[in-house]
Amino acid sequence: MPIRLALVGIGKIAQDQHIPALQANKSFELVAAVSRSGGIENLPCFADIGDLLASGLDVEAVSLATPPQGRHAIARAALEAGLHVMLEKPPAATVSEVADLAARARDAGVALFATWHSREAASVDAARKWLAGKTLRSARIDWREDIRVWHPGQEWILQPGGLGVFDPGINALSIATAILPEALLLQSARLEFPANRQAPIAAELSLRSGETPVEAAFDFLQTGPQSWDIVVETDAGRLVLSDGGQRLAIDGAEVSAGANEEYPRLYRRFASLVRENASDVDLTPLQLVADAFLLGERIEASPFSF
Amino acid sequence: MPIRLALVGIGKIAQDQHIPALQANKSFELVAAVSRSGGIENLPCFADIGDLLASGLDVEAVSLATPPQGRHAIARAALEAGLHVMLEKPPAATVSEVADLAARARDAGVALFATWHSREAASVDAARKWLAGKTLRSARIDWREDIRVWHPGQEWILQPGGLGVFDPGINALSIATAILPEALLLQSARLEFPANRQAPIAAELSLRSGETPVEAAFDFLQTGPQSWDIVVETDAGRLVLSDGGQRLAIDGAEVSAGANEEYPRLYRRFASLVRENASDVDLTPLQLVADAFLLGERIEASPFSF
Repeated sequence: MPIRLALVGIGKIAQDQHIPALQANKSFELVAAVSRSGGIENLPCFADIGDLLASGLDVEAVSLATPPQGRHAIARAALEAGLHVMLEKPPAATVSEVADLAARARDAGVALFATWHSREAASVDAARKWLAGKTLRSARIDWREDIRVWHPGQEWILQPGGLGVFDPGINALSIATAILPEALLLQSARLEFPANRQAPIAAELSLRSGETPVEAAFDFLQTGPQSWDIVVETDAGRLVLSDGGQRLAIDGAEVSAGANEEYPRLYRRFASLVRENASDVDLTPLQLVADAFLLGERIEASPFSF
Repeated sequence: MPIRLALVGIGKIAQDQHIPALQANKSFELVAAVSRSGGIENLPCFADIGDLLASGLDVEAVSLATPPQGRHAIARAALEAGLHVMLEKPPAATVSEVADLAARARDAGVALFATWHSREAASVDAARKWLAGKTLRSARIDWREDIRVWHPGQEWILQPGGLGVFDPGINALSIATAILPEALLLQSARLEFPANRQAPIAAELSLRSGETPVEAAFDFLQTGPQSWDIVVETDAGRLVLSDGGQRLAIDGAEVSAGANEEYPRLYRRFASLVRENASDVDLTPLQLVADAFLLGERIEASPFSF
C-alpha cells in the first residue's frame, strides 16, 4: 500500500521538484495539497494544516515545502496528529526549533526527515568516497548566484529567518559537511547586510575541517556565469565538485556522473524512514549558519531591491 | 586521592570564584595556572596549554576560565592529551565548537562539563520544582546590568564571538531552560548593535515554552538598580526568581534560600563526572543565543565606549 501523503506549500520548489518526484514514486500516493495560493490539479486543497487534520481525510504523511519561518508550527501539528513529516531545507527557522521537532518525533514514534537535497546530487557520494583516507591540504567553496534569476520576488528570503545568501549557501554547507572527513568548524565570518534588509546578501567564511583550512564565499548578486563549486586540494590531486554537486572532476578529468535525481532520492529515503518509523535529522548545516550569524562581523552593503 | 587540576585563564572570574571554590574542595588539588598575564601564588604558571602539556607535570583535569573565543582550541588540546575538561559559560564561541568538543570527549572517554553557573544559584532548583505540574500563563525575563560596573574594560565581550549583552543574558536563558517545563523556542528578536561594535548592547526576545509566551529583555546600559529577574505567572500564583536565581518569592512571600554556592556546586559536580568519566554538555542556552542572532532584527544604537 502506498503512503498517503499531503504536500504543504505549493510554490516554485513544489511545482518544480516535489510534485514530479512524488508522481513518479509508487511508494507514495499524493492525496491533498495544503496552500493558500496554489493547489494540485484534481486533488483536494486545504487552506492550512488544521483544516487538513480536521477534514478526516486519510493521510499518513506530510511533506513541507513552505518557507522556513512558519515550518515548526505546521510540523508540530502534524507530528502531534501522528503523521510522518518530511521538511524542505532549511528544516526550520532556528536550530532550537529543529531540535524540538526531533524530540517530538521521537516521542510520537513517527518519522521525521530533515532533507538536504544537495547531498543527493549526482556526484556527492563519489566525492565523499574519493576524499576518504586522503590527506587534505585546503578546500574552497564558491557559491555565487543571481537572486533575481533564482529567487524572483521571494521577499521572505531577505527577511529575518530567511537566511539571505545562506538559503543557497546552506546547500554548499550541507555538501561540505557530508564529504569532508572531519567536522567543519567556523573560525570567522564577514556578512554583508544591505542597508534596507535584515539578511545578508553576501558572506565570506573561514572554517576548518580538522587541520584543513576551508574558505567559503557566498554571493547573491552574481551576474554572468553562476558558480556552485567546491574545490579540495589533497595529497592525491585536486577534486572539483561543480554544478551544486552534479559534476565531479579529479585533476581536470571528468568522472562520469549519474542523472540529477535529488528529489526522487529524497522521497525514496523518506519512504524507508516511514516504514521503519525512523528519523534522519542532521542539524549541522543550520548550526553552521547560526554560528556565522553569531560570530560574524557585519558590514553594511548597498540597499537591495528585486 | 584528589584530582590534580590546572586552572586556565586567571582573570576576574578565576580570582573571584574558581580559585576559592577549588581551594575549599578536597576532591581537587590545584596544581598549576595557565595564563599569560596572571598566576596563582606558590603554583607553577604556564604561558599556554601546550607548555603545560609539554611540562610533564602530573595533571588530570583542566578548568577553562578564558574568554570563549579561544576556548575550543585549548579544550581540544586538553582532551587529546586525555585530560578531563570543565568549561566556563558560554562553553565555546560557537554551537558547532561545543558539539565537536562533546564528540571528542566521548571518543577520548574523559569527562567534559559545560557549566552554567547560574543554574546552581540558591533558588533555581526550588523554582523548577514549584513550577512542575502548574499551568503557566506567561513568563518575563529582565536582565539589566551596567557593563561598565560588571565588565570594566572587557573589550572581548563586544567583539565578534563575545556575545555582547548575551554574556549575562545567557545566564537568564540557562535558568529559564532549566525551570520551564517545556522547551524554549524563539519567535522573534530585536538586537541593538552600537554603531562601533560587533555585538549587541541590548536585546528583546519573544519566545514560547509550549503554549506559554515568554518575553525577555536584556540591557547592558542599566544604571541605578540592576535586575536579574524571572517572573512566571501560573494558575497557582506568581513566581518571582530574583538576584540571578538567588531569591525566590511566591505571591510576594519570600521562600528561604540556601547560601550562594554556585561555583562550589559546579566543582562538586565536576568531581562526580570525572570519577564516572561522564559528560554533561547542554547546548540549549548557546543555541538560543545563536538563534537570536540568526532570526533577530538588527537595530543600530549609539556608539559605545567603556
